Amino acid sequence: MGTVPANSIADLRDLARARLPRALFDYIDRGSYDERTWARNRDDLRALTLRQRVLVDVSRLSLATTVLGEPWSMPVGIAPTGLTGLFWRDGEIAAARAARAAGVPFCLSTMSICSLEDVRGSVDGPFWFQLYLMRDRGFTDALIARARAAGCPALVLTLDLPMQALRRRDAKNGLAVPPRLDLQTLAQMLSHPRWLLGTLRGRRRTFGNLASFFPEQGAATLAEWSNAQLDSTLSWKDIAWVRERWPGKLILKGILDADDASAACAHGVDALIVSNHGGRQLDGTTSTIAALPAIVDAVANRCEVLLDGGITCGQDVLKALALGARAVFLGKAYLYGLAAAGEPGVALALALIRAELGISMALCGERDVRHVGRQVLAS
Amino acid sequence: MGTVPANSIADLRDLARARLPRALFDYIDRGSYDERTWARNRDDLRALTLRQRVLVDVSRLSLATTVLGEPWSMPVGIAPTGLTGLFWRDGEIAAARAARAAGVPFCLSTMSICSLEDVRGSVDGPFWFQLYLMRDRGFTDALIARARAAGCPALVLTLDLPMQALRRRDAKNGLAVPPRLDLQTLAQMLSHPRWLLGTLRGRRRTFGNLASFFPEQGAATLAEWSNAQLDSTLSWKDIAWVRERWPGKLILKGILDADDASAACAHGVDALIVSNHGGRQLDGTTSTIAALPAIVDAVANRCEVLLDGGITCGQDVLKALALGARAVFLGKAYLYGLAAAGEPGVALALALIRAELGISMALCGERDVRHVGRQVLAS
Amino acid sequence: MGTVPANSIADLRDLARARLPRALFDYIDRGSYDERTWARNRDDLRALTLRQRVLVDVSRLSLATTVLGEPWSMPVGIAPTGLTGLFWRDGEIAAARAARAAGVPFCLSTMSICSLEDVRGSVDGPFWFQLYLMRDRGFTDALIARARAAGCPALVLTLDLPMQALRRRDAKNGLAVPPRLDLQTLAQMLSHPRWLLGTLRGRRRTFGNLASFFPEQGAATLAEWSNAQLDSTLSWKDIAWVRERWPGKLILKGILDADDASAACAHGVDALIVSNHGGRQLDGTTSTIAALPAIVDAVANRCEVLLDGGITCGQDVLKALALGARAVFLGKAYLYGLAAAGEPGVALALALIRAELGISMALCGERDVRHVGRQVLAS
Amino acid sequence: MGTVPANSIADLRDLARARLPRALFDYIDRGSYDERTWARNRDDLRALTLRQRVLVDVSRLSLATTVLGEPWSMPVGIAPTGLTGLFWRDGEIAAARAARAAGVPFCLSTMSICSLEDVRGSVDGPFWFQLYLMRDRGFTDALIARARAAGCPALVLTLDLPMQALRRRDAKNGLAVPPRLDLQTLAQMLSHPRWLLGTLRGRRRTFGNLASFFPEQGAATLAEWSNAQLDSTLSWKDIAWVRERWPGKLILKGILDADDASAACAHGVDALIVSNHGGRQLDGTTSTIAALPAIVDAVANRCEVLLDGGITCGQDVLKALALGARAVFLGKAYLYGLAAAGEPGVALALALIRAELGISMALCGERDVRHVGRQVLAS
Repeated sequence: MGTVPANSIADLRDLARARLPRALFDYIDRGSYDERTWARNRDDLRALTLRQRVLVDVSRLSLATTVLGEPWSMPVGIAPTGLTGLFWRDGEIAAARAARAAGVPFCLSTMSICSLEDVRGSVDGPFWFQLYLMRDRGFTDALIARARAAGCPALVLTLDLPMQALRRRDAKNGLAVPPRLDLQTLAQMLSHPRWLLGTLRGRRRTFGNLASFFPEQGAATLAEWSNAQLDSTLSWKDIAWVRERWPGKLILKGILDADDASAACAHGVDALIVSNHGGRQLDGTTSTIAALPAIVDAVANRCEVLLDGGITCGQDVLKALALGARAVFLGKAYLYGLAAAGEPGVALALALIRAELGISMALCGERDVRHVGRQVLAS
Repeated sequence: MGTVPANSIADLRDLARARLPRALFDYIDRGSYDERTWARNRDDLRALTLRQRVLVDVSRLSLATTVLGEPWSMPVGIAPTGLTGLFWRDGEIAAARAARAAGVPFCLSTMSICSLEDVRGSVDGPFWFQLYLMRDRGFTDALIARARAAGCPALVLTLDLPMQALRRRDAKNGLAVPPRLDLQTLAQMLSHPRWLLGTLRGRRRTFGNLASFFPEQGAATLAEWSNAQLDSTLSWKDIAWVRERWPGKLILKGILDADDASAACAHGVDALIVSNHGGRQLDGTTSTIAALPAIVDAVANRCEVLLDGGITCGQDVLKALALGARAVFLGKAYLYGLAAAGEPGVALALALIRAELGISMALCGERDVRHVGRQVLAS
Repeated sequence: MGTVPANSIADLRDLARARLPRALFDYIDRGSYDERTWARNRDDLRALTLRQRVLVDVSRLSLATTVLGEPWSMPVGIAPTGLTGLFWRDGEIAAARAARAAGVPFCLSTMSICSLEDVRGSVDGPFWFQLYLMRDRGFTDALIARARAAGCPALVLTLDLPMQALRRRDAKNGLAVPPRLDLQTLAQMLSHPRWLLGTLRGRRRTFGNLASFFPEQGAATLAEWSNAQLDSTLSWKDIAWVRERWPGKLILKGILDADDASAACAHGVDALIVSNHGGRQLDGTTSTIAALPAIVDAVANRCEVLLDGGITCGQDVLKALALGARAVFLGKAYLYGLAAAGEPGVALALALIRAELGISMALCGERDVRHVGRQVLAS
Repeated sequence: MGTVPANSIADLRDLARARLPRALFDYIDRGSYDERTWARNRDDLRALTLRQRVLVDVSRLSLATTVLGEPWSMPVGIAPTGLTGLFWRDGEIAAARAARAAGVPFCLSTMSICSLEDVRGSVDGPFWFQLYLMRDRGFTDALIARARAAGCPALVLTLDLPMQALRRRDAKNGLAVPPRLDLQTLAQMLSHPRWLLGTLRGRRRTFGNLASFFPEQGAATLAEWSNAQLDSTLSWKDIAWVRERWPGKLILKGILDADDASAACAHGVDALIVSNHGGRQLDGTTSTIAALPAIVDAVANRCEVLLDGGITCGQDVLKALALGARAVFLGKAYLYGLAAAGEPGVALALALIRAELGISMALCGERDVRHVGRQVLAS
């Protein structure tokens, strides 16, 4: 496929590892603490078994679906990821463009390098915005207003980061906000010239969404900064606070429990994303795919159920749909593509997942992704 | 056993790897995508447990059986495999001769290098023919007529390839149809002189069965070519279309689901082969041995049930018979032998499997392979 | 955290390995025989699954608890460990000081290098004392009197060492009591100069608690010495013997069975420690975490239930609490810190565990460690 | 323990590997085909869980038991093993002496290097004899008479070798009967001078028990020879044939199935040995420890139940006793000791197992090995 020498997400990961300084690659690649949940996300998906069917005319496959009323070309979106503009020059814009071209949604992170306004100005079409509730409610209020102004149709409120868990690799690598320019970091940068020239040169802005928020602060570790700024008092009453300020679709991200899912429905959200922050927060918790069925049952169609975490191939997408997810989001899988090759890399990641999903669906005897259900899984 | 230095299929695999260019060895050896189903085929067979019995007179063992009325010297056949003539000069003929000498059936693939007529002219006795339904129904019709003319007693219609899954290794190795003569390929060939001299020199023909079909086409990847030619509209109604043209035994290959097996019986086929294309199509689906019991139950003796996938020793054969298969087919296991040493290599692969089956059966206290059933498995 | 370059217990282990002579590191690190129970302690903790909850205000976390009426800043204590003063100069004092500073208890081992009186004189505050019943009851009686005189509030009687199991590494490394000064040992010492200068120089005393007990004896292997001195007649009647001499809290360590736990309650002990001696005694027995639930049920609140064995992160602490432990003890985890960096190393080990416990608890939606129960585990 | 530098059976194995030519070490060490049953023997033992108990007076442990009325100092015997005299000069005599000194039984194999008469003349005390039924019934008859003349109290009839399975390593190593003196073998011998000088020099005899039986035959592979000589018609009626000729205790070895065990009782045997030939015959069958409980149930005390297969430590012995075995036999475990150091090596292997059994029993709260039962296993 194209000129990027990769035919799997694993290949893109290899390319990303070669191009990025270690600290940035690890930030994308790894999980928190002993990385058990991070591993479970992937392993539990792999353990599921698809049901091969034959003699169904699969000459016309339909991967298109709708999520919250939006048409998506396939049930796969780009998850909000932090620091994305450090992996490729204007990385958020590159990813948003690739998503747009592929007919799938892009969700911008609060912790982005390009700002809401940057992305809005560079991409032809709407995108979603992910919100962290900061201790400074005035700033948070302003962020919501900016998202509204940027025409974002959906706001994704992240719940599973009331405080930041330790990603041991990040701590070892000295990942700081803003990046610390010590000797170790400089040496790493200089030993990755392709990244240095391609990403840093001409980079537009630093922490676009937060630029006005923390310029006065010196370098702290990413974890220290997060714990200082994020609002650990976040509770159900804050959902109403956000609702008052946000007229569009409201999505809760970080639900991993059926009781929380049920409560989310009672609070009138439009969708929820079953997530454990990619295995980067509570180490030892369940995989998202293992948590999905009970959540789908508890939601009982009161809102849409999406999922992220460990999706690295189209078969994984199919399995998540089979267990009741309406769509999934890619985090690591698209970031490998972005870090490997920029916009074409993201396009390739999406194309690979699409092809794998299509053929796997066909070999399960399904023609329309909207009809995928438990019947594609072996009991 | 003889002069080929091997006493297991694993040894033959080692010899094959040493002799073949990487692209060809990988084509034989590997599965699709992340190769989970490919691994399950083998692992699920290994996990089954045989029941050791003693004090049964096993001085006279009978491995002979009948399949579709044909006498077989043991319940093991040679599966249809593509490109076989690239692994050894006139590989299909070598394998057919070894099978004939061993008293077991050989099934020629549509995707062979030697043609139906080549094999017919070089082997003393009948063989089976495996059919892919091509988009060009006229050509398919002609293929069926040629198989009839060649005296094939059975037609094996492959169902699990309505489109071709990605075998990542093949894609990386640039496997093309017809083989592309680029520098990488030439270098590979020159670094395997035994293969180069023994296989290419004097090779009869290219894509024997398909020679008249695609000579005008340039090199494409194998997957691209397959997806362009194979008929993805294939459905149950096509079984009738084949039946009209084929008076002999009709066998459906690629059944992995009890419902499909039941439907196959209702369509009046003579046998079915429980198969997942050797783990080369739907990655994440069940192993064939795990799928077998429910299929045997669903078929309820309405047709014969055969199996392929992951059989690498006689104990595996015994386990498949125990769970209700009437016989099994060898794909990789015989190809390692062929690629290692040609006809004697195939003969050795069959002899090894036969010896392992015989002694394992005896140690389970069984004298006649036709009486093997669940009683040889530990509950 | 501070100047010790470690952000996990695993990092501290690496530092300890680098600094210590092999024989001492192995003594800390390894288990008995084939080390299956040693591995189960860790693996069974890892296999448990925490339940992520969201939208609970976790801005005010309380890790404080009480154990036997004592206030602890978190439900984590320092387990009694032998030979501790060999890993760092006056290691027992260093650990006791770090524990004191952290608001958690320190338990001195009978097999310590610093004596009860040493520790008492160097640490501001009470500590626990662990007792082995020696064959020489007069000496044991005197030990109990010394513990009383030192103001120890609790006596921990170890039950699971009526004879000493083989720690194969220790035997290979020639670990002797007192240390044998043969060539191999000297070479090991000289090749670890940081340990040699930092630990041996100025070491106060040898086998403080036992100094008056075995000065006349020559070097024996640690196992031989233990088996010669420890009382293998130890039985339930001895509990009364200890009770007569000990007016303070009495804790039984080494309970791994529900029937024994119930008997312990009937004998009126104040607490028990579910323990298998860190996987260093009965190889093949259950992990402590697996044994915990049945013991908690059997005890039925008649005494407090504590646990040690395999705790290497705060998530492990949380899991033990969830299954009914009131608190846990750290053995290896603190020793790595001590051997790596002395008192600051122990402080760091405790700080890491505390941070991991706090954030994990918060991400499970719990604010108060005293309320942690089964609800934080996925069913 | 003593001068052999080993404190585990694994250590003895390392020493044996260093001293023996590869072909002989592999003969001791490995199993048949893919060695799955060989691995299960060990793995299933390891997976069982012992129950730690405390506060039982274990100062007086009794490991002594009786088997078939004979007093054994512990419930562990030396299994019959072929070619033993090739691993150490007069290996059978060395092992028999070590067993005698340790108060445990030695069982001589039909396939020994020292003859019945050699052993009888060199060891002070009785030993058992293992019998293969040969096709030549006259010779078999004579063997039985020789065993009677040698005063053997028990005859062990091996059932699970009606034909010999392939031990792939042996086939690769060219193991022949009598040993073939080709260049490869000579080179192997010369590269192991300790073995060459210690074992071959002064060796008494070749295939002592069979010396009169096959001197006229040239070298064949061990498997070919076995299959030619062993009687594959062996069935239940032959038990009566042996019974007529053998007035002593009769033991059937190679029972792995409850139905066969029940039949054995009906035929009036004195004991049976649950065995799968050490994982050297039917690959894929169950481990002996997994087969044991159903066999014990089926036997219902009608005869004694013994076991071999995978016992490599005292904990394994304890587990086998717990599941109903009256005693176990060591094959590989003692051969490693013999090959490492001759008689002292066997003595050490027995001493290690004895020590491990004693302490493990004590830590399970058991004082008398005859009382060990299910109560020492965690449910």
